[in-house]
Amino acid sequence: MSIEALKRQVADEFGTPAVVIDLDRVERNIARVQQLCDAARVANRPHIKTHKSPVLAKMQAAAGAKGITCQKLGEAEVMVEGGLDDILISYNLLGAEKMGRLGQLLKRATITVAADNPTVIEGLPQAAEIAGRPLGVVIECDTGRKRAGVETAKEAVELAKLIKESPGLRFEGFLFYPTEQSWPQTQRFYNEALKGVRALGLEPRMVSTGGTPNLPNMGKLEEATEHRAGTYIFNDRMMLACGAATPEDCALSVYATVVSRAAPERGILDSGSKTLTADTGALDDGFGLILEYPQAKIHAFAEEHGFLDLARSNARPKVGEVVRVVPNHVCVVVNMVDRLIAVRGDRIVDVLPVAARGRLA
Amino acid sequence: MSIEALKRQVADEFGTPAVVIDLDRVERNIARVQQLCDAARVANRPHIKTHKSPVLAKMQAAAGAKGITCQKLGEAEVMVEGGLDDILISYNLLGAEKMGRLGQLLKRATITVAADNPTVIEGLPQAAEIAGRPLGVVIECDTGRKRAGVETAKEAVELAKLIKESPGLRFEGFLFYPTEQSWPQTQRFYNEALKGVRALGLEPRMVSTGGTPNLPNMGKLEEATEHRAGTYIFNDRMMLACGAATPEDCALSVYATVVSRAAPERGILDSGSKTLTADTGALDDGFGLILEYPQAKIHAFAEEHGFLDLARSNARPKVGEVVRVVPNHVCVVVNMVDRLIAVRGDRIVDVLPVAARGRLA
Repeated sequence: MSIEALKRQVADEFGTPAVVIDLDRVERNIARVQQLCDAARVANRPHIKTHKSPVLAKMQAAAGAKGITCQKLGEAEVMVEGGLDDILISYNLLGAEKMGRLGQLLKRATITVAADNPTVIEGLPQAAEIAGRPLGVVIECDTGRKRAGVETAKEAVELAKLIKESPGLRFEGFLFYPTEQSWPQTQRFYNEALKGVRALGLEPRMVSTGGTPNLPNMGKLEEATEHRAGTYIFNDRMMLACGAATPEDCALSVYATVVSRAAPERGILDSGSKTLTADTGALDDGFGLILEYPQAKIHAFAEEHGFLDLARSNARPKVGEVVRVVPNHVCVVVNMVDRLIAVRGDRIVDVLPVAARGRLA
Repeated sequence: MSIEALKRQVADEFGTPAVVIDLDRVERNIARVQQLCDAARVANRPHIKTHKSPVLAKMQAAAGAKGITCQKLGEAEVMVEGGLDDILISYNLLGAEKMGRLGQLLKRATITVAADNPTVIEGLPQAAEIAGRPLGVVIECDTGRKRAGVETAKEAVELAKLIKESPGLRFEGFLFYPTEQSWPQTQRFYNEALKGVRALGLEPRMVSTGGTPNLPNMGKLEEATEHRAGTYIFNDRMMLACGAATPEDCALSVYATVVSRAAPERGILDSGSKTLTADTGALDDGFGLILEYPQAKIHAFAEEHGFLDLARSNARPKVGEVVRVVPNHVCVVVNMVDRLIAVRGDRIVDVLPVAARGRLA
């Protein structure tokens, strides 16, 4: 079967928009990053926020991943339900509702959580008490991104002390996101923090780095024990733009139909902000790469309309034509759908539920 | 109970982020717009893309709406399942999969669809044949928005002729979106198109205008028979910005927790692009209005992080504090969640499923 026939089959069986992943490419991406981690002697703890599927997480584990990373409790719950274990939730979890759920989850699996402030750490013993077993805590450290994360090694050491003194908590180590620019600064931060926690009689067991764009920096932070990358399993236009992926590494595309061509230089796709999302991925050249018409630009969205600018494209699609769009940011697109159509080459082989979608918290 | 106690209760029972609607305000919004339609002698056909809930659609119908508008087949299916009838799907539907579903739906309810090109019209008889009853078709006309919609009255008349000649199709009328600026142009377009279809022996039964911001323009287009507004049921920061709503009309907010305050002038909310979405609503002042800290700005997102800039805000939240965020664009936020927490004032009264969410096509 050809790709054209596959597109027609997907459209006929599932309708468009449809989110399609190529499992051959997924497997290649999983294997490649596992090899990179092995070569850097850093354990692989892939971030499942990208796919939210226990099926895909198990493929990552089978290829050698030590554990997985989740960004929220709801994702971790679905993964434990799906048979995964050894989970890092790289997020400040707070509040009675979350502590109750975290406690129940900790009964069933090994969980480590992140914290960057005393309020979060003071709440965590509640979960450990519910579980009747210790909860591992890593300290999230900011080294330039200005998101969550303590800003100084001194604060990190203070939090390590608080963890040490908290019933049911176990100091696990540090969470970083060192980029090409920030890893030397991260190394200095880490060296100072390490000295501080050793003075408290603590030894980090987890020193985590992150990010698909930062895979080439793996191992630059001495004593890093593991890496959490997510996007690499599918890749997207952001990864193409930063050189972290080639077009052949892009395993996910949105199949969309051209539904209107009201004027020669413009058209409408049936995929708008409720499918491809308004997330530009910090690219300033429209939303998504149309594989069949790479010169065409999706320049704006309504909720169910993608506005095509065809001025730069000599080839132009007809109404009814199905095209494949590689999104700017794949993680937020997967989050919009309840299922992924799985293909190998030009053959449909499976439908995977996005099991952890809709778990808001 | 106070709003502070309500916030605590929502966080304790449901966790944050949670999407909360105030049914008292919802009812006021429904009643107000129904009155505006009645006063303009225009039937009300609210667009349910905003709420995707048959429960809320029935409240709109009970208040006097003639029917409802959907943007996709999946929404219409859920609405028919929920007991609604007389549905306009204001979208070019295409392809065998959609024609099969449309045919099944047409067996169960009165459906009108939009079309702006011959390819779409040529496919529609398949649905009518499956249903064994005629399908109403309105012609979508562009009067300045450059989205879908024929650009000239001449093209509209040609499509009307094609509908007339197509087995199982019934010409219903015209779909417009006249704004404050474009309604005179729309009137000229309509006058010419009306002349043309009358020459074919056709008479429009549906002349539809749309948009919450365009409610003040209702009735300016002579012979408009109905209006489709969606956002008014909840309103949002866009509607505040364009004067279509007051703060008291905003019926939906996202309850979010401050999870990090790594530096005095910044913080992190547990609501990022997977909750509030990257849709700016064309506002250039951050994402969302924080009711408790209106001077604070959500200046960027990660997937589960909202980046707070507190520089302009004298009052600053503590870690663990729950705040309410009115999103820039409410329709895309509802689409992210599987349930809405319904309150009246400071009391939780219900949980409504967002029944039509996740129906991609």
